Amino acid sequence: MMENNIPQRIKQLRKAMVKKGLEAYIVPSTDPHISEYIAARWKSREWISGFNGSAGTVVVTLEDAGLWTDSRYFLQAEQQLAGTGIQLFKQGLAETPNMFDWLIQKLTKVCAIGIDGAVFTTNEVLKINSKLRGKGFEVFPHYDLFEEIWTDRPGLPKDEIFDLPVKFSGVSAKDKIAKLRESLISAEADLLILTALDDVAWTFNVRGSDVECNPVAIAYAVVSQKEAILFVEGAKVNSKMVEALHSEGVTIAEYSSITQYLENLAAGTAILFDGNKVNYALYSALSPDCKLVEAPSPVALLKSVKNKTELSGIRNTMVKDGVALTKFFRWLEEAVPTGSVKETTIEEKLYEFRSEQEHYVGESFSTIAGYAGHGAIVHYHATPETASTLKSESFVLVDSGGQYFDGTTDITRTIALGDPTAQMKIDYTLVLKGHIAIATCRFPQGTRGAQIDVLARKALWDEGFNYLHGTGHGVGHFLNVHEGPQSIRMDENPTKLLPGMVISNEPGIYRTNEYGIRTENLVVVKEDIETPFGIFYAFETLTLFPFDKKSMDLSLLTEKEIAWINDYHQTVYDRISPKLSPEEEAWMREKTSKL
Amino acid sequence: MMENNIPQRIKQLRKAMVKKGLEAYIVPSTDPHISEYIAARWKSREWISGFNGSAGTVVVTLEDAGLWTDSRYFLQAEQQLAGTGIQLFKQGLAETPNMFDWLIQKLTKVCAIGIDGAVFTTNEVLKINSKLRGKGFEVFPHYDLFEEIWTDRPGLPKDEIFDLPVKFSGVSAKDKIAKLRESLISAEADLLILTALDDVAWTFNVRGSDVECNPVAIAYAVVSQKEAILFVEGAKVNSKMVEALHSEGVTIAEYSSITQYLENLAAGTAILFDGNKVNYALYSALSPDCKLVEAPSPVALLKSVKNKTELSGIRNTMVKDGVALTKFFRWLEEAVPTGSVKETTIEEKLYEFRSEQEHYVGESFSTIAGYAGHGAIVHYHATPETASTLKSESFVLVDSGGQYFDGTTDITRTIALGDPTAQMKIDYTLVLKGHIAIATCRFPQGTRGAQIDVLARKALWDEGFNYLHGTGHGVGHFLNVHEGPQSIRMDENPTKLLPGMVISNEPGIYRTNEYGIRTENLVVVKEDIETPFGIFYAFETLTLFPFDKKSMDLSLLTEKEIAWINDYHQTVYDRISPKLSPEEEAWMREKTSKL
Repeated sequence: MMENNIPQRIKQLRKAMVKKGLEAYIVPSTDPHISEYIAARWKSREWISGFNGSAGTVVVTLEDAGLWTDSRYFLQAEQQLAGTGIQLFKQGLAETPNMFDWLIQKLTKVCAIGIDGAVFTTNEVLKINSKLRGKGFEVFPHYDLFEEIWTDRPGLPKDEIFDLPVKFSGVSAKDKIAKLRESLISAEADLLILTALDDVAWTFNVRGSDVECNPVAIAYAVVSQKEAILFVEGAKVNSKMVEALHSEGVTIAEYSSITQYLENLAAGTAILFDGNKVNYALYSALSPDCKLVEAPSPVALLKSVKNKTELSGIRNTMVKDGVALTKFFRWLEEAVPTGSVKETTIEEKLYEFRSEQEHYVGESFSTIAGYAGHGAIVHYHATPETASTLKSESFVLVDSGGQYFDGTTDITRTIALGDPTAQMKIDYTLVLKGHIAIATCRFPQGTRGAQIDVLARKALWDEGFNYLHGTGHGVGHFLNVHEGPQSIRMDENPTKLLPGMVISNEPGIYRTNEYGIRTENLVVVKEDIETPFGIFYAFETLTLFPFDKKSMDLSLLTEKEIAWINDYHQTVYDRISPKLSPEEEAWMREKTSKL
Repeated sequence: MMENNIPQRIKQLRKAMVKKGLEAYIVPSTDPHISEYIAARWKSREWISGFNGSAGTVVVTLEDAGLWTDSRYFLQAEQQLAGTGIQLFKQGLAETPNMFDWLIQKLTKVCAIGIDGAVFTTNEVLKINSKLRGKGFEVFPHYDLFEEIWTDRPGLPKDEIFDLPVKFSGVSAKDKIAKLRESLISAEADLLILTALDDVAWTFNVRGSDVECNPVAIAYAVVSQKEAILFVEGAKVNSKMVEALHSEGVTIAEYSSITQYLENLAAGTAILFDGNKVNYALYSALSPDCKLVEAPSPVALLKSVKNKTELSGIRNTMVKDGVALTKFFRWLEEAVPTGSVKETTIEEKLYEFRSEQEHYVGESFSTIAGYAGHGAIVHYHATPETASTLKSESFVLVDSGGQYFDGTTDITRTIALGDPTAQMKIDYTLVLKGHIAIATCRFPQGTRGAQIDVLARKALWDEGFNYLHGTGHGVGHFLNVHEGPQSIRMDENPTKLLPGMVISNEPGIYRTNEYGIRTENLVVVKEDIETPFGIFYAFETLTLFPFDKKSMDLSLLTEKEIAWINDYHQTVYDRISPKLSPEEEAWMREKTSKL
């Protein structure tokens, strides 16, 4: 979707740049909390370029403009940048210049480059500095030029925050803060700055609705041995909430006052500081007399290991999500032959069925519903302009999830709408083999996700196939659907998998212009056995919905794999069927019958 | 084997410490070239402690002494430290204090700690400094106390270096130096310091006999656009060698003169510098006006990718090694029932048979021959005191290798000397499954060893078994049997596997006091196929010797695995049998007959 006013906006930006003496300006994708999903106020990269993918950086010089984005968005960016005068740079391709090299080449004379340090991490700005200062450029990190040119820029969200009761969270804010205070002691630090919105939400057992799909509120926080302060717009906190937070030992301060708070910290204060998470504006506020203890925020790891209450909530959520999906796929099977189903209908229908479930809040991310060739676009999101009508042939890939008070779901199923071809069945089955290899693997204590990633890929690699996304991402508890620090990816991640971590298991294969296949369940790490060789962990699959039996090529599956599928399907049936109508139960019985 | 004079030596060291005002002294395992195998001159850690394992650090204070070593050496260290007064600290166990924490706790008052910076990497000393200076201790990095207390300390080795002709090395020193000069340009550096002995040997196509098992000579080198200087004791270079090196554009200077050379470098010289490889004494010689370009030495990667001549030499070496092993295992089978074979006999016999082969130089490492329970000690080396006599039962594990002018070998075979039990067969077969999984895996360009390591372990993990060593290490061409930068390990290593890299494939299982099993071949990375999903690599197995058929539990092997074993055995037979006597050929025919 092209925005015709983009060239006009770039012109305004250049005017503002000239006024400040800047010859280049860099616009990233994030907010002051370094969020993946951001509130409208910080969508300045989208405003200036028209490109609305989740990742991408725009660089504007007085003469040129470019957008750097990754392979997920090549097609979308190409379409959205058409006519804007912004050049697309495809990250990851050998011929694509690095952003900094491009800048250095374009800015033939030494000059000034501007950024808004509030929407860059501290380490990013330090890196930009080291890349560009070495070449004689000067980087000015405190220019939010959008404040003056984006006249109808949305303000800070004002929605009220709400409490997540301990019956859902399992641990009180007071107890979580106590844990963080222990972390401070072992890290020999005095103060922790919480900037990630989900870190704040988890610590204080609060949720909000400031960001699409992520039930978080715009807020910062600090925790020391004496204080626990939540920095949030006053309008967002009603008196009941103030009282509830006070009773947990939490003080409330205005959102913007964190800067002053940090400026006034006593000399010598040792701050537990993650330069990859804290924005540069906050870093700049710190006195050089403060001591930085560089370490990841302890909240990330504490939050990733789900407690019993959270896990029991998530298991409950999976039943509800399974019931909604049963209703959805049953409807889909009947509706497709009528020619009435467009890709956009899928998101609507899923929302409708999930809404009927208890404690449902909303989507955990924008549904990816890709029919045939659209399924091969990994982060496809159907719009009225692009939406295909589904026919009784090829695959449809449906990747969706819900936010419930008791948990967050994320599931992908790919189903054949007609009779799958031999190649479709082979591809589907190879992906399923990878999925089962992760679901059933046993691994020693201390294993990292990158070590087991290949299990999901081996059946594909053996045929010369692969997928370029990760195999698994962490998932929050009624929080962000992408949550660190754990992952299962080809890339190294030093995080060890720990019992209680929830993670997705989602291998796939994508054939351009033909179809995409992805099979995704959520799993949780559990203790498995102890032997003379040590303690071993395994996964328990949490998601409850059958795989597409008719897309399987049974000759490619081992006996053990078939037994696992039958066993899983039996579990799905046993857990879901009591909540189904007789017609739905019959449908589910057929879908989960033995292979 | 306890050295009774150890307490006396520690007393002398403490005297020397007191004279210098030091309250602690740290003695590591390496030499100024940060070698794994070291010449006698630098075995000061062994001299001071009696512990002769390949890895371990001794710390001596005025009151206490400790040795830190890893799990490979727990048993050996315990025995060798008995009666020395040195306490054993087992690295990797939760209860073991970190060396620095122990030091800080022992040295209750702030004081001076001494080391010999020449036998620490630059980064190690910087780390020691940051660990200890923060606590107020002072680290003095230029004290080689052994120079005064070790009265019969061996001098620098004086053996002559010799030329490795291009017919073996494949590329002339001149051409290798030219490649390094290109690397300097792309790294924007003026000068490269070569300190690793195998880096020097590879670059200049020279070999030596200064270090046991590693055909290297004690030398440093520097390469700039104008110069290529080999720093080596004059006595080691005969006139023919001087001439040969001159004709390749190489100047020769005295070994010790490198310090002065570095001190005299012009201000502003940009030095390609690997702080993990260059010792701290050399680093200290550099003027602060020099610029350090921190990067791994380009030699490591160039050396790891074998050229066609090297690979053809290695393939040839594998035939010779296979012939020697045929003679050896045939002899072993006949000799064991006579009761005349001790573990120590194995090393002698292997040496004897390998010596008959063309271009044989010596062992590539000390043979590991572990019968029954000794096989479970991963780095076991039999001595007359410990050697068991082999009986017609249990397993014997034989890990050995040779240095030939045309290549380096490293092979482990485990064979059942009697009728293996069911558990022995299961263990053997699970290890073999892992070996085959690596031998047959296909992986995309860009894959790191840590990503595929699990393939070697999966069959074991599924049963709750594991091994704690790496699955694969790089191997040199008539050079060190442990060569970087590639590896296949549980630990992350950012090195991507490249076609031409030679690496070992050696999963194992170790049952304390029962037996150890390891199955090791060398493999080389090769280009395999290109598909729409990218370029894929695979391994070609280089080593040629059959596995122990009678130890296999065929019910645990898939059809594909059995086919691979049969196919491999056929290759072994085809390549080796033409070099065998009729009796040997018949033996080999039986060992490689179809499963």
